[in-house]
Amino acid sequence: MTIAGRTPTSSGFYVSEEVPIHAENPVPTPSSPAPDILRCAYMELVVTDLAASREFYVDVLGLTVTEEDDEAIYLRTIEEFIHHNLVLRKGPVAAVAAFSYRVRTPEDLDKAVAFYTELGCRVQRREDGFVKGIGDSVRVEDPLGFPYEFFHAVEHVERLAWRYDLHSPGAIMRLDHFNQVTPDVPKAVRHYQDLGFRVTEDIQDSDGVVYAAWMRRKPTVHDTATTGGDGPRMHHVAFATHEKHNILAICDKLGALRRSDAIERGPGRHGVSNAFYLYLRDPDGHRVEIYTQDYYTGDPDNPVITWDVHDNQRRDWWGNPVVPSWYTEASPVLDLDGNPQPVVARTDASEMAVTIGADGFSYTRKDDTEEMPEYKQGEYKLGYQL
Amino acid sequence: MTIAGRTPTSSGFYVSEEVPIHAENPVPTPSSPAPDILRCAYMELVVTDLAASREFYVDVLGLTVTEEDDEAIYLRTIEEFIHHNLVLRKGPVAAVAAFSYRVRTPEDLDKAVAFYTELGCRVQRREDGFVKGIGDSVRVEDPLGFPYEFFHAVEHVERLAWRYDLHSPGAIMRLDHFNQVTPDVPKAVRHYQDLGFRVTEDIQDSDGVVYAAWMRRKPTVHDTATTGGDGPRMHHVAFATHEKHNILAICDKLGALRRSDAIERGPGRHGVSNAFYLYLRDPDGHRVEIYTQDYYTGDPDNPVITWDVHDNQRRDWWGNPVVPSWYTEASPVLDLDGNPQPVVARTDASEMAVTIGADGFSYTRKDDTEEMPEYKQGEYKLGYQL
Amino acid sequence: MTIAGRTPTSSGFYVSEEVPIHAENPVPTPSSPAPDILRCAYMELVVTDLAASREFYVDVLGLTVTEEDDEAIYLRTIEEFIHHNLVLRKGPVAAVAAFSYRVRTPEDLDKAVAFYTELGCRVQRREDGFVKGIGDSVRVEDPLGFPYEFFHAVEHVERLAWRYDLHSPGAIMRLDHFNQVTPDVPKAVRHYQDLGFRVTEDIQDSDGVVYAAWMRRKPTVHDTATTGGDGPRMHHVAFATHEKHNILAICDKLGALRRSDAIERGPGRHGVSNAFYLYLRDPDGHRVEIYTQDYYTGDPDNPVITWDVHDNQRRDWWGNPVVPSWYTEASPVLDLDGNPQPVVARTDASEMAVTIGADGFSYTRKDDTEEMPEYKQGEYKLGYQL
Amino acid sequence: MTIAGRTPTSSGFYVSEEVPIHAENPVPTPSSPAPDILRCAYMELVVTDLAASREFYVDVLGLTVTEEDDEAIYLRTIEEFIHHNLVLRKGPVAAVAAFSYRVRTPEDLDKAVAFYTELGCRVQRREDGFVKGIGDSVRVEDPLGFPYEFFHAVEHVERLAWRYDLHSPGAIMRLDHFNQVTPDVPKAVRHYQDLGFRVTEDIQDSDGVVYAAWMRRKPTVHDTATTGGDGPRMHHVAFATHEKHNILAICDKLGALRRSDAIERGPGRHGVSNAFYLYLRDPDGHRVEIYTQDYYTGDPDNPVITWDVHDNQRRDWWGNPVVPSWYTEASPVLDLDGNPQPVVARTDASEMAVTIGADGFSYTRKDDTEEMPEYKQGEYKLGYQL
Repeated sequence: MTIAGRTPTSSGFYVSEEVPIHAENPVPTPSSPAPDILRCAYMELVVTDLAASREFYVDVLGLTVTEEDDEAIYLRTIEEFIHHNLVLRKGPVAAVAAFSYRVRTPEDLDKAVAFYTELGCRVQRREDGFVKGIGDSVRVEDPLGFPYEFFHAVEHVERLAWRYDLHSPGAIMRLDHFNQVTPDVPKAVRHYQDLGFRVTEDIQDSDGVVYAAWMRRKPTVHDTATTGGDGPRMHHVAFATHEKHNILAICDKLGALRRSDAIERGPGRHGVSNAFYLYLRDPDGHRVEIYTQDYYTGDPDNPVITWDVHDNQRRDWWGNPVVPSWYTEASPVLDLDGNPQPVVARTDASEMAVTIGADGFSYTRKDDTEEMPEYKQGEYKLGYQL
Repeated sequence: MTIAGRTPTSSGFYVSEEVPIHAENPVPTPSSPAPDILRCAYMELVVTDLAASREFYVDVLGLTVTEEDDEAIYLRTIEEFIHHNLVLRKGPVAAVAAFSYRVRTPEDLDKAVAFYTELGCRVQRREDGFVKGIGDSVRVEDPLGFPYEFFHAVEHVERLAWRYDLHSPGAIMRLDHFNQVTPDVPKAVRHYQDLGFRVTEDIQDSDGVVYAAWMRRKPTVHDTATTGGDGPRMHHVAFATHEKHNILAICDKLGALRRSDAIERGPGRHGVSNAFYLYLRDPDGHRVEIYTQDYYTGDPDNPVITWDVHDNQRRDWWGNPVVPSWYTEASPVLDLDGNPQPVVARTDASEMAVTIGADGFSYTRKDDTEEMPEYKQGEYKLGYQL
Repeated sequence: MTIAGRTPTSSGFYVSEEVPIHAENPVPTPSSPAPDILRCAYMELVVTDLAASREFYVDVLGLTVTEEDDEAIYLRTIEEFIHHNLVLRKGPVAAVAAFSYRVRTPEDLDKAVAFYTELGCRVQRREDGFVKGIGDSVRVEDPLGFPYEFFHAVEHVERLAWRYDLHSPGAIMRLDHFNQVTPDVPKAVRHYQDLGFRVTEDIQDSDGVVYAAWMRRKPTVHDTATTGGDGPRMHHVAFATHEKHNILAICDKLGALRRSDAIERGPGRHGVSNAFYLYLRDPDGHRVEIYTQDYYTGDPDNPVITWDVHDNQRRDWWGNPVVPSWYTEASPVLDLDGNPQPVVARTDASEMAVTIGADGFSYTRKDDTEEMPEYKQGEYKLGYQL
Repeated sequence: MTIAGRTPTSSGFYVSEEVPIHAENPVPTPSSPAPDILRCAYMELVVTDLAASREFYVDVLGLTVTEEDDEAIYLRTIEEFIHHNLVLRKGPVAAVAAFSYRVRTPEDLDKAVAFYTELGCRVQRREDGFVKGIGDSVRVEDPLGFPYEFFHAVEHVERLAWRYDLHSPGAIMRLDHFNQVTPDVPKAVRHYQDLGFRVTEDIQDSDGVVYAAWMRRKPTVHDTATTGGDGPRMHHVAFATHEKHNILAICDKLGALRRSDAIERGPGRHGVSNAFYLYLRDPDGHRVEIYTQDYYTGDPDNPVITWDVHDNQRRDWWGNPVVPSWYTEASPVLDLDGNPQPVVARTDASEMAVTIGADGFSYTRKDDTEEMPEYKQGEYKLGYQL
């Protein structure tokens, strides 16, 4: 359902019931049932300098080391009780080795094998897991080219939520979500709906072009999202804090460490998700979001929110423009042999081109015939300044 | 599993796997499957002065009126998209008419009817609902004497999360949970486990007496809790804010309105749930909690946390004592004819008596042989002061 | 004392004792003593559409109306006990009619008259004040062309700090400071030192060019600042909140009202002053800063902080670049007849040109030989993007 | 001016112009001019276990060690640029050795000597100071028995405000004020007015009995306050944070360290000063307040606020009662030989007795004829509970 002819809510976006997404060129829907995914659980990142990455994730961001050796560091957030939410593994090329989800039961791994086998995907299963702390696991190259992992068995560790003596001003509480870059967003959404994800929000234009979509298993706005662009690539991994000042504290600390150039975009308030956000780049350029205060989405009829791509409050509710690198840069993802997946170019319109490029346009008030104030134009029109 | 002989975590509480609770005198487990409950959805409160209650919930707390007439006011929180989270209905005696839960599908109502019918409970079903905005509904007098409601069909309304122009400094985002007073906590927990609830935390002593337990459907610490005491009665209904300063703002506003005597306990930090809290009393004495920042509990093996009843940080992490009224006062609940349910006395030990009473004791450090500092004793020993 | 050859603190800036500033072309120092200024007290703004301005300052920002009529609106902040901190007066051209300071005693007005008379400035005195709520007042066209006012007698009004029922999420507590654009910063600073101001911070390059300076009477970082540029013009007027989330709430509300294009720059953390900030533009384009949490400067030997103009954390501690309009746009100021003062061009180097222009450069780490990460360059080099 | 017959503001307190306080038995006013005091600068505390005190002030509260040896530790707050704000000195009896104020010029020390010599007080002067980091200093036994110190010369150290990498969640920014217990409050206030202090707030009853008063030099609510009671004793020393959540973080950390019994009162919102507060007790029982967000008082006609002693929102705006120890316990102060000063009993009515004692009363709404709600009575009437 495109936004053409529809009436927006008083906040400027559109609301509808979720329906199966139409894709021109869909991945087939398997007859095998999907595994029951609980939540995004951890990402395995390949980093080129383990010491530099440790400094970033442990000394700057304050993640807790569960375990480490010369090859890998296992990190968790303060509220976590499973072994880790992030694995940093030393390797030759900065990339993502796994988007890992926890499933409800051990039997869901059999379902995962059948589901992806039916789709003709490459599937590996290891009873003692691909990484420390995790038991029986299934890894696949999914139909969109992403390395997805599923597991249930996991080592429990102490939940440090009450250990306020260990909290820093920018304390990170939970892993929140992944974000994947893929050329054909409707195709990806349709496939992830087959895998059991529910759509919560998306960005479209009045012709029905879909620029991005957000999908959840746990009842937040997302466990993963798909961003239209050349892919498969990893756009970002996101962690949650309790309050907004925790995110500001991370910025302040980066300034104090003279590492403010790790800040790529924000802090700001998202339109999509209504969360407060910040985007950082780690020493390899992997993008990390710090995020807080989206909303409950767990009812089956949770309204799907659609944003007009030309609404300049969709990605930043305060109308601050997205920096170009945020649209164009992303991390390679690996196949099951550890080689980077080839990237396919997006053919649909690019969100950057239609909004801030020379021919793009964005509005603050939908039917406003006035242009942006002169003092804002330099921010929105690339090449306009000076 | 009692705490005797176990080793606490570094935070002072105990962790275990959830197991079915043993009750001396259990409610039978029905063979009919339980309805699939999504979350606590709304409470119907009977109030004696509708105008006074409206002033409290709308003008002071800032809840949004979805609909109102001379008999009832339907209120919702900022992030809600269903018709209401609270119904205030005019009546002769302040009481609770319904603890209402939303279920996943319309068919879950048939399951609810079968489940409670098998238990010999009184059951009513109305296709057009017992209140406005809600469709087909089942109300029961549950085996513990509480008026429980289940529904799926509901009118959607606008989610106001993005309408920051309408937010107050103490903006309330969601309904979070209920809390029920009942004499036999293990009996209640066992029954609610049969209904599909999962235990997240409880308070015990080393003899295995259970003083209170927290249970969830949505992946927060609870959708409802049972507090040991004379019951069935309603202990409180709780709403969530985004940040701690929102809760402080409610206190500040009550001061400005010279209504600070509505504050019964807090603000403070809970041990149980790790949330920041405040307890208010409405014009009829109904207790309302404002609450923020508990933790994710959605994994099936989420560790159950057990607190020692003598740990004086269990109910307030800062060691501030619980005021006596919080233990002793609660609201009547109604049967399906609208008459108050008779109250049965608790026979197990009372949490107040074993902790702050003349013979009770509480510790800050488990193996500390020193007494509380003299300046704290007056707070802990009732009758000690002056 | 320029920064060449000096050693920075561990935070990257330089510290020195305050000394009288050297100016090439100084305003003479009067032999008459300066009036004893307490603080910046209010600004009189000429606005072209009184209703539009009222909506911005009252409905959006939440300032309190002390008094209003068809020609003018008198507004105050929550903690203020004098009649107003801002006068909005209807007029044909958006401009500033007065930068008004409160002095310690009625006799300080005689000193003000003598001080400016000796300087050959145009001076007016009105026993019953130029605006409502203010008594005996002196207005001058100061040697730099700014309309300065001094007064002591003022009507007291109720301080609303305890009236939390009236506070909005973005509650504004105090008027904090003014900021003036002037071509010759050292000349201006030297003159304001003669008037009794103390320098707290400035921005220089290694050749000793001064780009901006901050000066105080009350013990905060400033009551006014001078920004190098074509002047005399008014750069901004700043108000203070208690906490950072109050400033974020103003952004969120502007988004909800679809007025986010009022946000020109920020929110962010200043290097200079260490305060958290936001810059807005009112309906006439007057710039308003919202500001919180600078530091105490009241000791006579308070260290002067000097920032290197090429330090990209000086104006935003997080390294977010300043938008061009912030450097170039400002409001006219009026002479005592109500006519805009002619503007004189700055001849020293422009801060924008030396930092973000084609030939400018900025660093995050002083001795870093690496360039900015590629993803930041588009933000720093105007015209670089795409 | 007593409150009898006066009209309160809409917030419930009374406002008047400051006048010299009438004291029955005043300290004479010296003909020598008072030294020009800038601000409270540091307290010298005698502690019995230096390691235990270091753990409390450094490891728990996060103060910065400027210098230390086996006998003393010199601590400062994050924004401070002078050598220290607190000296912990090892000694046999926990007590206060100095309330130290910084004066504007070196010559103010001569004034201090003359001022106190004229009053017949014992005076000592040391050119190289009584403690490290401080130069020429004067110490006196003031007419009320308090060890007051004055100094100007001081070693500068780095202001760490920008060093966010060193900040903890409960970061303490500034020393804010002292609080002194003295039997005759009007006598004390009158004397400190002679020393140049200005009164900002006080607590009285309708007979004109003064229970406490707040006095400032820097433009906050106070540099010191006098609390009616047996004295001379030190009631507390107070430090300021930026935001309210910083204070809550200190409570949370104390809980995590199982040291919550260090919390004596709060956190809460003061009526007097409008600040958010927390009272701790250090390992020797010295009381420390953490405080934030009072208001600007620097204008000479700043309105004096008088609170009715029976207004139960005067000391806690939320109406939470003051714990008895807060009224009765305080630290000894030393004479210039290091011996504890003898304590003189208060003869005027005690604030505790007239408010929460058996015969006392407190109101939330002045003319309310109803009693406190039953659930609050146990908190207000000592001995009422159970």
